[in-house]
Amino acid sequence: MTLRVVGLEEIRSVVTPELVFGAVRTALIAHAEGRTQVPPPMVLDFPASSGDCHVKAGYVDGTAHFTVKIASTFASVNNGLMLVVDAATGEPAAVLADEGRLTAWRTAAAGALITDAMIPADVEEVLILGTGDQARLQAKWLHHLRPHLTYQIWGRRPEAVTHLMAILKAEGIEARPAPELGAAGAGRGAACVIATTPATSALPFELFRDAVHVTGVGTDMPGKGELPPEIFAGATVVTDDHAQCLDHGDFGNAVRAAVLAADVDLSVGAVLRDGFIPTAKRSIADLTGLGVQDAATASAVIAALGR
Amino acid sequence: MTLRVVGLEEIRSVVTPELVFGAVRTALIAHAEGRTQVPPPMVLDFPASSGDCHVKAGYVDGTAHFTVKIASTFASVNNGLMLVVDAATGEPAAVLADEGRLTAWRTAAAGALITDAMIPADVEEVLILGTGDQARLQAKWLHHLRPHLTYQIWGRRPEAVTHLMAILKAEGIEARPAPELGAAGAGRGAACVIATTPATSALPFELFRDAVHVTGVGTDMPGKGELPPEIFAGATVVTDDHAQCLDHGDFGNAVRAAVLAADVDLSVGAVLRDGFIPTAKRSIADLTGLGVQDAATASAVIAALGR
Repeated sequence: MTLRVVGLEEIRSVVTPELVFGAVRTALIAHAEGRTQVPPPMVLDFPASSGDCHVKAGYVDGTAHFTVKIASTFASVNNGLMLVVDAATGEPAAVLADEGRLTAWRTAAAGALITDAMIPADVEEVLILGTGDQARLQAKWLHHLRPHLTYQIWGRRPEAVTHLMAILKAEGIEARPAPELGAAGAGRGAACVIATTPATSALPFELFRDAVHVTGVGTDMPGKGELPPEIFAGATVVTDDHAQCLDHGDFGNAVRAAVLAADVDLSVGAVLRDGFIPTAKRSIADLTGLGVQDAATASAVIAALGR
Repeated sequence: MTLRVVGLEEIRSVVTPELVFGAVRTALIAHAEGRTQVPPPMVLDFPASSGDCHVKAGYVDGTAHFTVKIASTFASVNNGLMLVVDAATGEPAAVLADEGRLTAWRTAAAGALITDAMIPADVEEVLILGTGDQARLQAKWLHHLRPHLTYQIWGRRPEAVTHLMAILKAEGIEARPAPELGAAGAGRGAACVIATTPATSALPFELFRDAVHVTGVGTDMPGKGELPPEIFAGATVVTDDHAQCLDHGDFGNAVRAAVLAADVDLSVGAVLRDGFIPTAKRSIADLTGLGVQDAATASAVIAALGR
């Protein structure tokens, strides 16, 4: 058996925003319509090495490949790869040794797609919470869809905020630091908030005070939570997967805090398919990340590479 | 990133019975002692292609690698590979493109180890149920441990029985066809039965009539079952994993048939560690296969190959 191993540079050579947006959109809509297989993820923990490994699998019915993704984080360093398997024969088609980038991109694409779909046309500024890789990507990928938006950046370390602003500026994206917490303007002017932190307890409520829409992408595993439960009160909530968001998303945290019922959420895929007209004071998109996003993205990469 | 892909021939060049027996024995004992991680397997189904894919992960605490195995069966053709990951760094160490052989070998090794540990010293003949790859391997691997045993082969197709006998003979293993069902001698003389079939309903009770020990390796996924529940009555039962065997092993089938209680089983690993002295009229080993067997075997292969 020969197994094709595709490295990150080769992957980068064919990945475009259009490719990832298209794959992720297709996957989320298929998932909303029950045309996917997404077994519960597997988790292994390595406390002695400050590490964990998540294994996610996914398949969009009728497509050419399914994918098994191995994503590990050891001492804050991400690693991983995707194994792409032929869905007609069961033969491994390729290993995408993407160093975790495809996951980062599909997460950014999902966030950008749902944010774009749900924020009103007159929103001008977005507040990004967090200063890491996903903070940068959420701004960058949303910029593809809404080039006229500007950004505020909030983080606990001022030097990290400054660093991210410089990176965004180099990519042609306008950003300023968010006002200090407690200062008069904190959170003001940001009708849209995108939370990208690995927080395990709620971020300050003040940050969400004026938000008409919030997208959260940080709750990718049990034990995390970044959105204050109280912002869910009376909000329209969309989830990428009902059960998974109830299990370990901010939606589940809010349900357990008795702020809203467990059956009120709509699906991200249905909103992407049908569009969204706000009827509540606030909308919230809870994204926990699905194996079908990996599968659809990986399959699109394989197709773009040629076999 | 470079990813080492090790093909089947290279794997064969270092795999010895001693390597697999040692790895599997270590893994099963560690599992019995709670020193392993074995997340519930993931399953994807592809009915249009008569296929399914099982993903199993495993880790023996304190060892160098963990393993994620992707095993698919499409139109009765097995495929698969094992991804071996460094447990200190999370970096993929290698892909073992073993075409499913390591799973076959570790399954055979586990069956042979527990059969050898549990059958009385005076057993002379073993009845193998089934004529497939695992039927051959159970005889072959047990032959390493108990070279003086002879075999009866039972299968639904006489030509498959003849074929397997010829293969075993070529490997120096003595075998004869099992007596016809209903004939005077059916099942007689076989104090030990090893069931290796993909059956989804119980095999004829007659086959087990004189068995003082039964090892079953066929129930690797929900929906299968080969051992008649009634043979569990009053038997000493050992399981490779209590929860997994209760979920989809023959042990679980017997519990659901109300033949025995759900909490009577001992662990395979404890028997391998401590030995076994029969106290009941019959003993039964239910093996469903564990990701830690894969992990330990794959790690031993990597070590033998050198890095």
